[in-house]
Amino acid sequence: MLRLSSSDPDFAEAFARVVSDRRESAVDVADDVAAIIKAVRARGDEALAEYTAKFDGHDLDVTGWQVDAEACKAAFDALTPELRSALELAASRIRAYHEAQVPEDRDYTDDAGVRLGATWSPVDAAGLYVPGGRAAYPSSLLMNAIPAKVAGVERLVVVTPTPKGDVNPLVLAAAHLAGVDEVWRVGGAHAVAALAYGTDRIAPVDVVTGPGNAWVAEAKRQLYGVVGIDMVAGPSEILVIADARNDAHRIAADLLSQAEHDPTSQSILITDDTSFAQAVADAVEVELSALATQETARTSWTDNGVIINVASFDEAPALANALAAEHVEIATDDPEGLMRSIRHAGSVFLGRMTPEAVGDYVAGPNHVLPTGRRARFSSGLSVLDFMKRTSFIQLDQAALEAIGPAAVALADAEGLPAHARSISIRLGQS
Amino acid sequence: MLRLSSSDPDFAEAFARVVSDRRESAVDVADDVAAIIKAVRARGDEALAEYTAKFDGHDLDVTGWQVDAEACKAAFDALTPELRSALELAASRIRAYHEAQVPEDRDYTDDAGVRLGATWSPVDAAGLYVPGGRAAYPSSLLMNAIPAKVAGVERLVVVTPTPKGDVNPLVLAAAHLAGVDEVWRVGGAHAVAALAYGTDRIAPVDVVTGPGNAWVAEAKRQLYGVVGIDMVAGPSEILVIADARNDAHRIAADLLSQAEHDPTSQSILITDDTSFAQAVADAVEVELSALATQETARTSWTDNGVIINVASFDEAPALANALAAEHVEIATDDPEGLMRSIRHAGSVFLGRMTPEAVGDYVAGPNHVLPTGRRARFSSGLSVLDFMKRTSFIQLDQAALEAIGPAAVALADAEGLPAHARSISIRLGQS
Repeated sequence: MLRLSSSDPDFAEAFARVVSDRRESAVDVADDVAAIIKAVRARGDEALAEYTAKFDGHDLDVTGWQVDAEACKAAFDALTPELRSALELAASRIRAYHEAQVPEDRDYTDDAGVRLGATWSPVDAAGLYVPGGRAAYPSSLLMNAIPAKVAGVERLVVVTPTPKGDVNPLVLAAAHLAGVDEVWRVGGAHAVAALAYGTDRIAPVDVVTGPGNAWVAEAKRQLYGVVGIDMVAGPSEILVIADARNDAHRIAADLLSQAEHDPTSQSILITDDTSFAQAVADAVEVELSALATQETARTSWTDNGVIINVASFDEAPALANALAAEHVEIATDDPEGLMRSIRHAGSVFLGRMTPEAVGDYVAGPNHVLPTGRRARFSSGLSVLDFMKRTSFIQLDQAALEAIGPAAVALADAEGLPAHARSISIRLGQS
Repeated sequence: MLRLSSSDPDFAEAFARVVSDRRESAVDVADDVAAIIKAVRARGDEALAEYTAKFDGHDLDVTGWQVDAEACKAAFDALTPELRSALELAASRIRAYHEAQVPEDRDYTDDAGVRLGATWSPVDAAGLYVPGGRAAYPSSLLMNAIPAKVAGVERLVVVTPTPKGDVNPLVLAAAHLAGVDEVWRVGGAHAVAALAYGTDRIAPVDVVTGPGNAWVAEAKRQLYGVVGIDMVAGPSEILVIADARNDAHRIAADLLSQAEHDPTSQSILITDDTSFAQAVADAVEVELSALATQETARTSWTDNGVIINVASFDEAPALANALAAEHVEIATDDPEGLMRSIRHAGSVFLGRMTPEAVGDYVAGPNHVLPTGRRARFSSGLSVLDFMKRTSFIQLDQAALEAIGPAAVALADAEGLPAHARSISIRLGQS
């Protein structure tokens, strides 16, 4: 864990290193992924079966290519009442928040008599990648599937690796609850390629979303343009801005909730009180020792954790904007004031009673958020990721007479005479 | 030019070939572009100067790295009154259409006492790529720069190659009109890399938009994630749906307005009348012979043009949805009815008096639109491409008591105890 103070003479330099540290996989998987995509494009299901045998250790013709709807329903029915109502609460709150994101169509006629507008429509089919192993989260399935359903997507396809054929029953239960149409037992870059290009068994989709390892992320990047994708995601991160009026253990727990995700996760504390900084550092050690995920969380905190002392919270917005963190928790007396000055953040958690984890599950806003400083230019997953806009234009003779000649002048100036001609021929200037 | 009829026995197969034909560069520039990006990242301005000397044949230290604001203003002042008012009309109509795209923030408290919302903010800086040579269009500069200005972007940077040092005065005039802050005389993949990573001279930006050749497109694709990008663009295309009540020459002019862009452009006509189809084919030949851009337009029409005869326009929506064309012109008695059934299109031009070219310049909606069937999942350029959304959440004790336990249950089920702990410690369950 790195301790910095904004009064240190070399603070600017040290902070710049924190900002530029990407913590991302150094392994270059681009060539491997390109070869996998090529194979799936050429040999379809045959390639899927080979890669699944190789990476997940099972034969799809034996274990079955799909998990059927009955199995998903059975997994849902087998939930404990507590988990079932927790999943239902999460789903209904996520749905409510995302329903308000559905954009409105436009249709109006302006002063020149030109009718203009735009209609939004859902994509036909969306593919959701659900990781196997450590990161197989039902909450993540809900966060990806529900916006797609709210958008009106008719076909929702999940691909997920099932090492040795084992599936995560919680993920199946969430798939049932979210109304997923197909669940395929394939994962990795080959699954993303299958979603993008389609195979004999798996019909292609239009958008692929969802988290994954370096191979999955690279496959999405390479297939961007063939399909739409949500974003290129990196390791998770949290910035906590907290004053000394907080309980140090609560803040320590918040920092560790991010650290336990992955050794590459990053937790940063900004505080204006040196002894509170020390109290949190101490509390982290105490909390760590009681944590079942201690190994991951400790590595993350040791390698990537940062505590920054500032003289005043007036310094915080500039630091927060430079970090452009995925999650920003503001546990101060005036969280609202600080939020107004923080322009780059995936999601903000206001006040002392809003631990970030509540947003991971049940608050309602999406937990798929931009990482690695991408909050400078991108947004969390939303209904818009599953919709697209078609603009439209309608002119009558009078409207074309009003604005057409300007278009003719510009087309001529750009050396595009057929453009000009298509207008002038309608203006009787042919 | 390909003639198809939906009554042909092999129509489905032939049409599928049209749909799947990407018409995109077969040249694989990925390795070249990766090397260029690496060089710019490592050696900054020195690399930019070398590539500019090599590709554009001038020495940036002699011609100057930037075109200054005075030169842009001078170019604007030197416009003919006709061109000046045409550019001003275009700019004001584009601005008006895009102003209505600025999304509204949300802030509400729901039944559980949870405050939820989202704020939209512009990116800090945007880079616009403006091609040199054939495709240096002032209209394109306006279509990229004005949405960024409307979004509230504070720093707008243009990069443009200036072969032998020559600049296009119309582009400079448009840059002045649109309020561009910096114009750099660099183009190609190296310019995109400079925008993404920054150099000593050029500060990095957050989003890069604008058209370009295969190298520029590949650079944007490779740098996606380091910066935001608008989209991966391919050759332009138009689908015209027209009945026999149209003037064949007008429809021919519309088809050629797309064909003149580039040899790889595609123009497709769907009509329900065989003799009208022939009349248009004949009119294209007549129009072509009078066209200054005949060489390009003829190659495009010969290689990629398609005329499809249908028995009834009821067949048109399915064909249009499969093509998911950038531009769809509907010149029939009931264009509105057909539009309602066409779900995948970049922009729709309704009726007999709305040639697509009017949308390229002065209608108002953006002319940067998804190509190559990407209208299935993506939208034209908009203010949203220059903004990002930050969600926020605020709970008090009562709200956390209401929804927190469900989050704890889910975190435990997902094997994330620190997530659970950060909530339970605030619920007095520690």
